[in-house]
Amino acid sequence: MNDVIKKADVLVEALPYMRKFQGKTIVIKYGGNAMVNNKIKESVLEDITLLKYVGVNPVIVHGGGPVISETLDKFEIESEFYQGLRITTKEIMEIVEMVLVGKINKEIVSLANKFGSKAIGVCGKDGNLIEADDYELNSKNEVDLGYVGQVKEINSEILDKLIVDNFLPIVAPIGAGENGESYNINADLVAGHLAAALNADKLILLTNVEGILGDKNNNSSLISSLTIDEAKIMMNDKRIAGGMIPKVNSCINALENGVRRTHILDGRVPHALLLEIFTDRGIGTMVTK
Amino acid sequence: MNDVIKKADVLVEALPYMRKFQGKTIVIKYGGNAMVNNKIKESVLEDITLLKYVGVNPVIVHGGGPVISETLDKFEIESEFYQGLRITTKEIMEIVEMVLVGKINKEIVSLANKFGSKAIGVCGKDGNLIEADDYELNSKNEVDLGYVGQVKEINSEILDKLIVDNFLPIVAPIGAGENGESYNINADLVAGHLAAALNADKLILLTNVEGILGDKNNNSSLISSLTIDEAKIMMNDKRIAGGMIPKVNSCINALENGVRRTHILDGRVPHALLLEIFTDRGIGTMVTK
Amino acid sequence: MNDVIKKADVLVEALPYMRKFQGKTIVIKYGGNAMVNNKIKESVLEDITLLKYVGVNPVIVHGGGPVISETLDKFEIESEFYQGLRITTKEIMEIVEMVLVGKINKEIVSLANKFGSKAIGVCGKDGNLIEADDYELNSKNEVDLGYVGQVKEINSEILDKLIVDNFLPIVAPIGAGENGESYNINADLVAGHLAAALNADKLILLTNVEGILGDKNNNSSLISSLTIDEAKIMMNDKRIAGGMIPKVNSCINALENGVRRTHILDGRVPHALLLEIFTDRGIGTMVTK
Amino acid sequence: MNDVIKKADVLVEALPYMRKFQGKTIVIKYGGNAMVNNKIKESVLEDITLLKYVGVNPVIVHGGGPVISETLDKFEIESEFYQGLRITTKEIMEIVEMVLVGKINKEIVSLANKFGSKAIGVCGKDGNLIEADDYELNSKNEVDLGYVGQVKEINSEILDKLIVDNFLPIVAPIGAGENGESYNINADLVAGHLAAALNADKLILLTNVEGILGDKNNNSSLISSLTIDEAKIMMNDKRIAGGMIPKVNSCINALENGVRRTHILDGRVPHALLLEIFTDRGIGTMVTK
Amino acid sequence: MNDVIKKADVLVEALPYMRKFQGKTIVIKYGGNAMVNNKIKESVLEDITLLKYVGVNPVIVHGGGPVISETLDKFEIESEFYQGLRITTKEIMEIVEMVLVGKINKEIVSLANKFGSKAIGVCGKDGNLIEADDYELNSKNEVDLGYVGQVKEINSEILDKLIVDNFLPIVAPIGAGENGESYNINADLVAGHLAAALNADKLILLTNVEGILGDKNNNSSLISSLTIDEAKIMMNDKRIAGGMIPKVNSCINALENGVRRTHILDGRVPHALLLEIFTDRGIGTMVTK
Amino acid sequence: MNDVIKKADVLVEALPYMRKFQGKTIVIKYGGNAMVNNKIKESVLEDITLLKYVGVNPVIVHGGGPVISETLDKFEIESEFYQGLRITTKEIMEIVEMVLVGKINKEIVSLANKFGSKAIGVCGKDGNLIEADDYELNSKNEVDLGYVGQVKEINSEILDKLIVDNFLPIVAPIGAGENGESYNINADLVAGHLAAALNADKLILLTNVEGILGDKNNNSSLISSLTIDEAKIMMNDKRIAGGMIPKVNSCINALENGVRRTHILDGRVPHALLLEIFTDRGIGTMVTK
Repeated sequence: MNDVIKKADVLVEALPYMRKFQGKTIVIKYGGNAMVNNKIKESVLEDITLLKYVGVNPVIVHGGGPVISETLDKFEIESEFYQGLRITTKEIMEIVEMVLVGKINKEIVSLANKFGSKAIGVCGKDGNLIEADDYELNSKNEVDLGYVGQVKEINSEILDKLIVDNFLPIVAPIGAGENGESYNINADLVAGHLAAALNADKLILLTNVEGILGDKNNNSSLISSLTIDEAKIMMNDKRIAGGMIPKVNSCINALENGVRRTHILDGRVPHALLLEIFTDRGIGTMVTK
Repeated sequence: MNDVIKKADVLVEALPYMRKFQGKTIVIKYGGNAMVNNKIKESVLEDITLLKYVGVNPVIVHGGGPVISETLDKFEIESEFYQGLRITTKEIMEIVEMVLVGKINKEIVSLANKFGSKAIGVCGKDGNLIEADDYELNSKNEVDLGYVGQVKEINSEILDKLIVDNFLPIVAPIGAGENGESYNINADLVAGHLAAALNADKLILLTNVEGILGDKNNNSSLISSLTIDEAKIMMNDKRIAGGMIPKVNSCINALENGVRRTHILDGRVPHALLLEIFTDRGIGTMVTK
Repeated sequence: MNDVIKKADVLVEALPYMRKFQGKTIVIKYGGNAMVNNKIKESVLEDITLLKYVGVNPVIVHGGGPVISETLDKFEIESEFYQGLRITTKEIMEIVEMVLVGKINKEIVSLANKFGSKAIGVCGKDGNLIEADDYELNSKNEVDLGYVGQVKEINSEILDKLIVDNFLPIVAPIGAGENGESYNINADLVAGHLAAALNADKLILLTNVEGILGDKNNNSSLISSLTIDEAKIMMNDKRIAGGMIPKVNSCINALENGVRRTHILDGRVPHALLLEIFTDRGIGTMVTK
Repeated sequence: MNDVIKKADVLVEALPYMRKFQGKTIVIKYGGNAMVNNKIKESVLEDITLLKYVGVNPVIVHGGGPVISETLDKFEIESEFYQGLRITTKEIMEIVEMVLVGKINKEIVSLANKFGSKAIGVCGKDGNLIEADDYELNSKNEVDLGYVGQVKEINSEILDKLIVDNFLPIVAPIGAGENGESYNINADLVAGHLAAALNADKLILLTNVEGILGDKNNNSSLISSLTIDEAKIMMNDKRIAGGMIPKVNSCINALENGVRRTHILDGRVPHALLLEIFTDRGIGTMVTK
Repeated sequence: MNDVIKKADVLVEALPYMRKFQGKTIVIKYGGNAMVNNKIKESVLEDITLLKYVGVNPVIVHGGGPVISETLDKFEIESEFYQGLRITTKEIMEIVEMVLVGKINKEIVSLANKFGSKAIGVCGKDGNLIEADDYELNSKNEVDLGYVGQVKEINSEILDKLIVDNFLPIVAPIGAGENGESYNINADLVAGHLAAALNADKLILLTNVEGILGDKNNNSSLISSLTIDEAKIMMNDKRIAGGMIPKVNSCINALENGVRRTHILDGRVPHALLLEIFTDRGIGTMVTK
Repeated sequence: MNDVIKKADVLVEALPYMRKFQGKTIVIKYGGNAMVNNKIKESVLEDITLLKYVGVNPVIVHGGGPVISETLDKFEIESEFYQGLRITTKEIMEIVEMVLVGKINKEIVSLANKFGSKAIGVCGKDGNLIEADDYELNSKNEVDLGYVGQVKEINSEILDKLIVDNFLPIVAPIGAGENGESYNINADLVAGHLAAALNADKLILLTNVEGILGDKNNNSSLISSLTIDEAKIMMNDKRIAGGMIPKVNSCINALENGVRRTHILDGRVPHALLLEIFTDRGIGTMVTK
């Protein structure tokens, strides 16, 4: 009996946080390890369903890197990379879209429904949610990246309506080109743009590292909080590099467009989302204005 | 860290129950010990606020016995009892109303607001919520009970509107007589009538005993579930007696008017409400059709 | 027959005034004599119900001075005054709250319902309507006034909703302190703050004098209209003094926060409210910007 | 001053009647003398505007007999009558429609607006309000009555919307034939059909006689109340005859389709409408089920 | 079969135009020849009903010149003109109003209903839609024009509501004077004011000439597009004269108050409205800012 | 010019049909040839967008047979058939889902958006739209068909909301099993169930044959209309066979659940949909109750 009572204590401890986030929109990017490990995958969606039930409005954006690679391998389609970006031919784009929209997105929808969400999967083509065009490299763009895209405009009407009607939107990061062609866009960047367009309270990027490290080679050098300016310096210094760059850029973009707080969390920590939202214990790295 | 994660586990365990009760109305009678002990009093209102945040619509009815007696003592007003009912003269009625509406009700409102509810206190006169008339004794009514009342009609409009507007209604069991006079009505009975009028999913009577005992003298003879018919037999047998009678009658009235389940819970158990709603562990006695 | 027709003429004469005030909010402070004399008390509520029926939105604030004093006497609790303010100990505050909220407020609710209003009584704790803190004396505050409060903030949501849902709100001037403690606030001042917060068209203070007199000792020196500046001069000159000061301050506060007109009326005049609203015959004193 | 106070008394006396009719629809046929005498015409519209302001939903149907005759005379168009019905050729119908819709209806709209109503004039063609076909005489129909019509169907959508939007509808009794042709319909009958279609609480026919007389030749034989059955007997007996027949039939039709009470009132009595609605003094004849 | 398929092709060609005008308000002045020729009259209303069905919100304003003259002739009422304006005595005004409101307006309503619109006819008195006063001549006003009016203010509430409720408003250009008197206003000018008040996307004046000619005497000198400035110069030069002046002024007024485009079209061209809205083929003259 | 005017004539001819179908839901199955031939594919979506613009609510269900086969071939996955049904292993199911949801559905969404629809693609998992279980063969089910499913329940909430919000829903015929597994369901059958659940006015199955033939070997033996009973006889007689069976069963299911009319149309005919809806010329076979 005492045990059960202690559990009730825990529920009640969450009350101040429920109060704080009720009715707020939180955009959650869910990718990397958090999506591959089945147990974590389920747990994240259970946590998100809980958020929904206590009055928060989560919007999920998912990536799909590993499953895409797997599928390309399986069908023996080779792909090249340039500056970390997969050069996306028409053939590859078709596989990418099928995997993201027709496989990963629907798995997430199924899982979320299992826990009691009314999940609806959409991609950037649905209701023209994400208008996209060719990704512009910073350097002179001598390489044709194919259908690697960037966000040109967000038309959030479909998400606004789904939120009002109490559905849980799950977004696949496919962009719609002007002529109906598909674009493969980095999910972190999509999440940042959506957070800005939805005027979200928080942007949370769930990943498979602990957060931003002061010293890449030292796992215990986690930086728990950093400003846009500090982040920019670290990117210049190459202390922030690789896959962390789009994450940090997504945070900066969101912050500059009205999102209050952005977080890069370690999806491997059980209930990382709930810990971030329902406790004072910061985990991962928070980027703020 | 592990500790915090375990807490998140607990939140997630509550999810199936949130799903089950979302949007449902639960009428909670809150009296006896649960109101005298300060710690329990606070805890009950924190639990109720939690219910509100996870999408349940609680409606609270409170009693006030001990504080009324205290106040009458303080002002040296004597009162007599007949069959367990306080004979309520005009003078006593005035004190009863002031204590219930002007003291206890407002304390509860304050406490609920402290935890983040938007609580509004009403009594049976507000919006003519509870129309009342003289209480009819079963036996020939040779004693004038004064302003002891019974529910004649519930006009639930004010509660319906408060629920829709996301307020938490706190009801003092004062009835409105035809000519504006006040009636003192047993809070258990008011709760039963409100549960019926609001088409509540559950009626919960929080009290300071463990529930209905098979053998009054044996605390370990708690009956965890019983039907209307069984309850009636036990009342005939006088195995259910005293203050338990209005509670059981309230349950029967509610059940016969469409409420699905009714419970008599021990308010001294910490988080009794949450245990009942968020776990499978039945506590107290459930009366069902 | 002619008699009846003349009555109909009277109804029709009121039409231009109905047109003028339809959909407007009018805050009415109702205290002093208007509350003690039973006939006037009823008449005021009948008049207010009429206002409600012709499309005006009245909000009532009541005081309770005489009844509070009576009750304190009855229970032999002594109280001291400082600069006209009752020093309010915890024990006295409890009585004040019980009398205002549990007795006077509910009597008014009952009476208003009798005439066909759907009246709902609230105090400053309900929905945190009136946030209060310690009253600040102008002079150096060497005396501890106890729970004498002043308005810190109005959260008018509950009133807004009650008005939209066609209820008649009756407000008891109890303030909610930061820690749930109760404050006794001058009802005139509460009325002024509510009029400002509700963006009322009119503030009417019903009292038991004829209005503001040019010469305190001469009842026929009634000033029918005066500006804020003139009122301030008269307060400086002590020509406005005593209980008239909070009334005038309430008017000034309301006017400076957008209320169009404020009136100090003699509640002893039958139908004083209707005369003010439905005729061109000014009665009492109007304070304007 | 006393005089003004007495006027306020009168307003307050009307309160119980306001309570009774608030939100109710009352269809008022307004014709005959009530329309010709300018003073009465104004007075009726002022009374109706008052009804609107105290929360009643009046719908006006007007006739136009005398003005139509005048206009036909002026333009030297002759017309014949058969059984009291004007034989309506195409040429006459055009005049009838122009007078009813383009003259009388707009005069009424203007007058009502003058008193503060938001009046909108419609005829049976607007939104296809009144579908009509050829009037069927009881006797074998050997005479071609031309465009004399009867109500085939009411499409009340436009009136429902105008009422919800707080407009005052003024209906000219022109019916729309299947091929867009116009029909001249007795305004009493139109009023009865509208009362039925709108589920009105009352149908009031304002006319220029005192009501139904027991003895046609004796003005003091007014029957103050009569049932459908009694009315039918009186029509059989020819004690009800002439222009009173469509009025009584209109009442019967309304009563048989759910209208609670119907009245034939003397429009020459000042404020006849207000006397009927706001006093207990019955005037004219009430026909009930 | 091929024939039918080609017809479907035509429907599909209209799609981009439907997309463009969906939900937009278009004010259409419909007068002159378009109203006299029966075939064109029907065709215009069929076209307008089509607009309604494909999601456009048309508002019709009609004139009535020829029918008014005919009626005055028929009743042998003579009228004089001054600068092209009919001097409107009280007697003439009465005829004008009856013809416009009671004849032409209702014919248009009937026709529109026949094609499936839910048409409602209103004039400037309904809901006080068009407040008017005496028309001011540019020159010193030595002539009393009688009830020739100009628009003082538009109260568009009734039109706003009719549009929202999916009705088709048909407006007769009668203005309401301050004392309920009627004014005869040029329908072109009314249309321009309504377009401005309704924030219309387009104002279309259907007339019986081809548009504005560069050379009055040369029908092939049609100007397909012209700016406000150019139009003003042409009016100064008297190259725009007569009945074209109020049309051009109406366009200018509309354009200066936010209407995007204005058109003077030849109502004799079959489906002139549809050609303008559903094709790229400009017909008539477009006046733009 | 005459040419353009004739086109306008065509628009106007469609008006009676617009009137008839405004606000009605029409479920359109779109598969077979209509989906492979690019020109037809585009044309169908343009037609559907037109329907949307004229106030009809189309809901599209698509199949994907040929593209699925192509993809399986490309990846060298072999599949077997039993009684015309593809035995669907887990591996095949994954490909089927990716192709239907991630490729075909999104192509349709893109195309519809290109024409101006606000298209949203969903599959049976989104909002649990289509609950499915194992397909039951009529014969004893000795063969394991794998993930071939049948509709167990439709939860149409997501479609209801999308329709109200003016989106165009595009449904991929994937069913959601109880444990989140995917089912491959015949698109014709899904369309029939959706039509029933949405209370559609019409079900239209676009296919690549002319309709139901009286004599399979004679293309000119098209049956233009047939009842449920007649259809059942023809299925018994094997005159209706193969892929036509699920189509006919879908029609029967829809008709028995309240859909008014069902059609099997030849998608190869240009604008087949528009011809069916906007002309009286029946094409294909209509199945009715």
